[in-house]
Amino acid sequence: MPEPIDFHFDFSSPYGYLMSERIDALAARFDRKVRWKPMLLGVVYKQLDSQPLPSIPMKGPYSLHDIRRSARHLGIALTIPTPFPVATQHAARAYYWLHGQDCAMARAFAHAVFRAYFVDGRDISSKDVVVALAAAAGADADACARALDDDAVKQRLKDACGEALAAGVFGSPYVVIDGEPFWGVDRLAQIERWLAEGGF
Amino acid sequence: MPEPIDFHFDFSSPYGYLMSERIDALAARFDRKVRWKPMLLGVVYKQLDSQPLPSIPMKGPYSLHDIRRSARHLGIALTIPTPFPVATQHAARAYYWLHGQDCAMARAFAHAVFRAYFVDGRDISSKDVVVALAAAAGADADACARALDDDAVKQRLKDACGEALAAGVFGSPYVVIDGEPFWGVDRLAQIERWLAEGGF
Repeated sequence: MPEPIDFHFDFSSPYGYLMSERIDALAARFDRKVRWKPMLLGVVYKQLDSQPLPSIPMKGPYSLHDIRRSARHLGIALTIPTPFPVATQHAARAYYWLHGQDCAMARAFAHAVFRAYFVDGRDISSKDVVVALAAAAGADADACARALDDDAVKQRLKDACGEALAAGVFGSPYVVIDGEPFWGVDRLAQIERWLAEGGF
Repeated sequence: MPEPIDFHFDFSSPYGYLMSERIDALAARFDRKVRWKPMLLGVVYKQLDSQPLPSIPMKGPYSLHDIRRSARHLGIALTIPTPFPVATQHAARAYYWLHGQDCAMARAFAHAVFRAYFVDGRDISSKDVVVALAAAAGADADACARALDDDAVKQRLKDACGEALAAGVFGSPYVVIDGEPFWGVDRLAQIERWLAEGGF
């Protein structure tokens, strides 16, 4: 059985959302599992002295256009939410807390968070929204609300961000196949070829 | 006859080089001409307070790896030259000077500059190399050498950089089809679909 693929992302990354709608099915065609690894782009950008895409002159406005066009090209529903981007530490903490209980529930929650933000325009920075999405995925709402303030859960996300930085992650989505890194949903064709040919 | 496509690039941009090897043939399949428009990324980056890709932490090393892999994916010969990147004002000035005489000669020269740098590792920042490449494309070597110091030729490139900024160009390659902008050689599939369907 080949090694799982690592999929690093931030829940407020639109290109990360697009990747989230494709990577599992693509990997499954090559008998691969995918490890989903939410992190906080804010932590990465602070380290790199970078800034969120929408606030970069010229590139920012282009990117909003390109995000919509890339979604249409892939056939994936997407509306740029307002506000955009948002803080995603609650969503990421809930993900890791859920993952400690049930991988499948965590995966369903992650899809639900992405779609809540990029399809339904819900405010995924809100604790209440995060708890509601976790409950809809099958978690206990009160336990989830408590977990979001739990120091061990907070530390779990800090560790995840540190691990992402150590793995070279500087953006979202960032996919790693057997040590080979692919940044951006626009690398899907190369990812497919890499999986099919074992490198090229 | 549909409008020509605009292809903005810097001669020291590896992704620009990859695009230069594909855009004319792709456009021709849809009865389109391509206007090649060299500019100076340094001017753009100064305006945007940005910096060359290789000098950005984490993203820089990744990009050198991605450039090579993208070249293999497209089946185009490429070696990252040393030094990289280099100043390309002489090459760009020679291009516009040649274009004023003969479009086809300018196009042949542009291909030769890209290949001299990214295949043969020649120093395209050198006036001597630029003049030699222009002469090989059919130009008069002495006249080309004089043109590189001509104020009107220098102004032509300044104007081109100003026009690129005004057109929203913030990187290389930057392709515009009927007002629709595409940044990056990784947008080739979207460019092809846009040309085939007239938008999507």
